[in-house]
Amino acid sequence: MIQQIQAAMSGWKLPIGIGDDAAAPPTGAGQLLVSSDTMVEGVHWDERLSPGDVGWKLVAVNASDLGAMGARPSWAMLNLSLPEPLDRAWFLDFLEGLAAAVQHFRLPIIGGDTTRSPQRVLSLTVGGHSQRPLLRSWGRPGDQLWVSGFLGRSAEAFYSKNPSESAKSWFKRPDPPTKLGVAIAEAGLGHAMMDLSDGLKMDLGRLCAASGCGARVFPAKIPGVERLDWRVAFGEDYELLLAAPEEEAAELHQLAGGLGFQLTEIGELTEDRAVILEGGWPEALFSHFETRA
Amino acid sequence: MIQQIQAAMSGWKLPIGIGDDAAAPPTGAGQLLVSSDTMVEGVHWDERLSPGDVGWKLVAVNASDLGAMGARPSWAMLNLSLPEPLDRAWFLDFLEGLAAAVQHFRLPIIGGDTTRSPQRVLSLTVGGHSQRPLLRSWGRPGDQLWVSGFLGRSAEAFYSKNPSESAKSWFKRPDPPTKLGVAIAEAGLGHAMMDLSDGLKMDLGRLCAASGCGARVFPAKIPGVERLDWRVAFGEDYELLLAAPEEEAAELHQLAGGLGFQLTEIGELTEDRAVILEGGWPEALFSHFETRA
Repeated sequence: MIQQIQAAMSGWKLPIGIGDDAAAPPTGAGQLLVSSDTMVEGVHWDERLSPGDVGWKLVAVNASDLGAMGARPSWAMLNLSLPEPLDRAWFLDFLEGLAAAVQHFRLPIIGGDTTRSPQRVLSLTVGGHSQRPLLRSWGRPGDQLWVSGFLGRSAEAFYSKNPSESAKSWFKRPDPPTKLGVAIAEAGLGHAMMDLSDGLKMDLGRLCAASGCGARVFPAKIPGVERLDWRVAFGEDYELLLAAPEEEAAELHQLAGGLGFQLTEIGELTEDRAVILEGGWPEALFSHFETRA
Repeated sequence: MIQQIQAAMSGWKLPIGIGDDAAAPPTGAGQLLVSSDTMVEGVHWDERLSPGDVGWKLVAVNASDLGAMGARPSWAMLNLSLPEPLDRAWFLDFLEGLAAAVQHFRLPIIGGDTTRSPQRVLSLTVGGHSQRPLLRSWGRPGDQLWVSGFLGRSAEAFYSKNPSESAKSWFKRPDPPTKLGVAIAEAGLGHAMMDLSDGLKMDLGRLCAASGCGARVFPAKIPGVERLDWRVAFGEDYELLLAAPEEEAAELHQLAGGLGFQLTEIGELTEDRAVILEGGWPEALFSHFETRA
């Protein structure tokens, strides 16, 4: 397995690679940031995802975390726990999606560990550099709230009987706007940023709790699929949630448009600690953690 | 769980900690090196290890990888996959051993991920800095071969009916000589270095293959428990294997002694590619990967 992973990374020039006790990541300008996500079969995915989709998603969700801090993706460490004997067809399909995402998000795998396990458990730890990390705790009352892209596609793919192609594609191979996150941070824009992995309802609550403020957002402003609960109460959007002062609005629009991304203003942070969706939040859909087993 | 891990790390001053999408590791002088190891219940441990031992070992085996490259341990990312509902007694015991090892090896946990999984699967990714990384591929014919410490204790604990206290203790809470590895590298000594995790037989083969040479070692010189097969063909020694030019011998002895470690010369690297133990290698004991399930 290690040889095949190594072969899939052969296009990357790395000073010390897979094979030594430790690997030497590429250096970069600014602060190193690291993030990590684990995917467990039966918990985080089922037969709706091909092995290649799983490989893609493992890289994409980690790239999303880096981009949402304003960090340029740089390297990844892979921990693969797979049943024995190895299902070669599964592994090769997985590797295809993994390698495609590694190219797309610029996250070469420089090391890791492979072990046997009754269950497929995949962890990726990623590193990247940021000249200006944007934390979720730096939001201020009066900031405008923005989201990138189009929310609720994964929910549509998960719940709808006739999901759109775009929804199916995002659910299987999400493409988080890491370049937009980096560009916002490096342009000196924004106060607080994070990615939407558990849905706007939950993630906005986290941003507000960390920033010590509240929020008021408007359903008609939230871009995405038709059903409001899918847009705000499911997750796996992997879009950006950004708090930025009002005077940056024009510049943010221009920056996003120039890179081919959409940024939509959905409300604002408030002095009052309540986190309000005008008209009320829909019930949380069961999170993937609780229902997909 | 995250709160408890965070609380256990409260003594460490970290600029951006657990809670954001990504964490900012402490910086250090020299090249960043990262390493990662996964432990799966039933594969890498069984009831011989307490949960606290498992927590300790997860940190220790990763510290060992850093030290064997000459890198000062600096930070760790933890990926915990545990069954639901959470076994609180297991978790608290695990956390005790983990926190003790974090202190001992200076590897504060700065982030990670916790997920549900039918099986306990634990991954740790660690980072450290080295001003002079020592690879396993830099050995040269004529180099003397050295090992630190005392080999075969984990094998004794695993196989013996009456293992010594020292053997039991090393098997449960190994204490790899990371400080010695760092000191050797920073003193500009040695050509190639790695840790002994799979036994001298297998690991020396790897060092020779990577360095493009062979080796000749002598059983009577190999320090450790009485049985030769336990000393060379089991693993979990977490000691250093070092190749260094003969003229460094006195300095190496002095350096190790001054730090309270033992370094023993066991043979040399050869032009000829054969990897020879005088008198022949004992049969490999089944590795932990194959038999401890």
